[in-house]
Amino acid sequence: MSKGRVEAFSDGVFAIAITLLVLTIAQPNNYSDLAHQLGDRWPSLVAYVVSFAIIGIMWSNHHSVFAHFSHIDRGLNYLNLLLLLTVAFLPYPTGVFGEALRRGEGARTAAVVYSVTMAVNAYAWAALWLYGSRRRRLLVPGFPEEQRTIATVGFTAGTVLYTVAVGVAFVNAYASLALYGALAVYYAMDPLSRLAARSSSRRR
Amino acid sequence: MSKGRVEAFSDGVFAIAITLLVLTIAQPNNYSDLAHQLGDRWPSLVAYVVSFAIIGIMWSNHHSVFAHFSHIDRGLNYLNLLLLLTVAFLPYPTGVFGEALRRGEGARTAAVVYSVTMAVNAYAWAALWLYGSRRRRLLVPGFPEEQRTIATVGFTAGTVLYTVAVGVAFVNAYASLALYGALAVYYAMDPLSRLAARSSSRRR
Amino acid sequence: MSKGRVEAFSDGVFAIAITLLVLTIAQPNNYSDLAHQLGDRWPSLVAYVVSFAIIGIMWSNHHSVFAHFSHIDRGLNYLNLLLLLTVAFLPYPTGVFGEALRRGEGARTAAVVYSVTMAVNAYAWAALWLYGSRRRRLLVPGFPEEQRTIATVGFTAGTVLYTVAVGVAFVNAYASLALYGALAVYYAMDPLSRLAARSSSRRR
Amino acid sequence: MSKGRVEAFSDGVFAIAITLLVLTIAQPNNYSDLAHQLGDRWPSLVAYVVSFAIIGIMWSNHHSVFAHFSHIDRGLNYLNLLLLLTVAFLPYPTGVFGEALRRGEGARTAAVVYSVTMAVNAYAWAALWLYGSRRRRLLVPGFPEEQRTIATVGFTAGTVLYTVAVGVAFVNAYASLALYGALAVYYAMDPLSRLAARSSSRRR
Repeated sequence: MSKGRVEAFSDGVFAIAITLLVLTIAQPNNYSDLAHQLGDRWPSLVAYVVSFAIIGIMWSNHHSVFAHFSHIDRGLNYLNLLLLLTVAFLPYPTGVFGEALRRGEGARTAAVVYSVTMAVNAYAWAALWLYGSRRRRLLVPGFPEEQRTIATVGFTAGTVLYTVAVGVAFVNAYASLALYGALAVYYAMDPLSRLAARSSSRRR
Repeated sequence: MSKGRVEAFSDGVFAIAITLLVLTIAQPNNYSDLAHQLGDRWPSLVAYVVSFAIIGIMWSNHHSVFAHFSHIDRGLNYLNLLLLLTVAFLPYPTGVFGEALRRGEGARTAAVVYSVTMAVNAYAWAALWLYGSRRRRLLVPGFPEEQRTIATVGFTAGTVLYTVAVGVAFVNAYASLALYGALAVYYAMDPLSRLAARSSSRRR
Repeated sequence: MSKGRVEAFSDGVFAIAITLLVLTIAQPNNYSDLAHQLGDRWPSLVAYVVSFAIIGIMWSNHHSVFAHFSHIDRGLNYLNLLLLLTVAFLPYPTGVFGEALRRGEGARTAAVVYSVTMAVNAYAWAALWLYGSRRRRLLVPGFPEEQRTIATVGFTAGTVLYTVAVGVAFVNAYASLALYGALAVYYAMDPLSRLAARSSSRRR
Repeated sequence: MSKGRVEAFSDGVFAIAITLLVLTIAQPNNYSDLAHQLGDRWPSLVAYVVSFAIIGIMWSNHHSVFAHFSHIDRGLNYLNLLLLLTVAFLPYPTGVFGEALRRGEGARTAAVVYSVTMAVNAYAWAALWLYGSRRRRLLVPGFPEEQRTIATVGFTAGTVLYTVAVGVAFVNAYASLALYGALAVYYAMDPLSRLAARSSSRRR
């Protein structure tokens, strides 16, 4: 597999999924009371913004991770497809989540479905990283060992974190949505890669 | 972040959003009177063409602006994602606007929602430009100072203009739609960059 | 405008429009009689295949035409956006056409709407070509004069042909659909460029 | 035709079709019993995953096949468009298949429609390969003869296999869905290209 085309294909799926999200906001069904109808849809708008941020940041991180791989083999290609499956699927639980909160029915069920999607995504990320980095299989030669350890801890912690987040969804749907917003901000700050950068500059 | 991939991803979102717009035109629900049904949808068609022009021109200007940046950092990447969010969201208010005008109900509410989307978009543009150009942070070395000033005035004026345009929407929905058509033509002419080009050629 | 990015953006719009076409085929509403329901949708399938062929061939020809331009200016960029508008819009009349034929209601109206879209498309092609080729404004230096004349005749004839085709739609919807199928095959054969190739090889 | 742009366009159609698949899962219509509603949709989810895997693996194989072509002519371009038509169409039978299994009505009809789509796809693959490889028309010079024979046998066997699979659909819809899942795994393992690699390394 050519690395450039795998990245271009992945970028395409990220770009399409992030743009399709808008179709998850339900159309108004009554225009005589439009302001109220649209106001009612604020949970859909919040879910839209949270999922948009998640996919956008994930796309940014996809770049960073793939920049550390020297090439791509069949196994990594399939793990990447699994990751893309969870990204491409996200519009469905996003739409259901927003709609359930709007109707005030089924909100926790919707939060659980959203959370399970995100957890599978976290496992796909971890599998992708472990597959590519174990025994430095696909890593670029210059990639520092400490950074590898930090990233491995980070992706593993991610799977624990998102598994726990499924539990939050069982308790409270709004808390669950807020948590994913907070996680998006956390990943946007990307403290792990800063830590890695600091540790690798300290080493020099 | 690689500048090339940020541009390619942005191009992807622009291309998908501009093509998804067609899904915002409501299907006919009665084929025995199809000519009348379709004729009735002219506001949706106008809203479609206006939004298509806006996204198309914005995509063209995105190129010009990014050509002035020597590289892209994390902050600019996130401001660009914010900008893309407003572009990817545009199909929703476009569909609601056209449908509200067709039904003759909720038109001003729809115009306000459309206008607020455009205003947030103008603020995202201004933030992107100010972030990248302040103290010439990300500007290519040869970029002339006068042109920087002209562009800063232009993007700032844009935020004022689009904020005022929200007020127009409260008054009259048709005037609001016409205004966005006129603004698309104005940006297509791009008088600021002509002014900048003239001023920079005068300097030489 | 960078020629490469205009082509990539255009490729994106062509690829998205051609793939969105599948959404124009109406879902079955009764599964107890699924075979009959799906059989009934054959006009939608034919309209789908015809529009798919039209967009696919148009995309191929877009390449050939742009290969003759040495660069792209603001005017050509906007005419290209106009062309893309007609391509991105095509899924709407395609869906309406197939559905009208299936219902046996409004078929001629639907055929006229489809035909007008195609006619506007033909005018956009002609405008694009004339703008770029007049006085060889944007043509690559080596482009032979005879080929320019042949292409100009071809694009002009296209506008006449597609204007006449609107008339066919007023008479018979099935004849209209068959005509667009035939035109797709005709353009796939691309006799003009063969003629041009022959004439330019004769010249040498 | 530039090979790079045909590949980029094909990648675009694969990426869009794979991401559009999510729209084929029907929205819940009753949120008071959301868990049950979503649980009911498991056949749609399975059909989604199977089609996602099929398109993802097909995209991977598209790369391998095109890597063996030195250039692309008009005929191959049109056969590739035919192949892309079957890929872009797949979301429709995927949605119908999942929905028919959920409702427990029309499942075999849906399985047949899905299978016929896959069979046409297999014929398009075979036509593409035979057109490009016969008398080594478009093959890169170094491509070994044994590998050509193995690939020809493989694509021909594919047409037989997928034709037989239409028969399975007439008998049992679930068996049919399971078969496509198994075929996706089979193609993911890609035993033919391993065989080819072994045979070509034995030759050296």
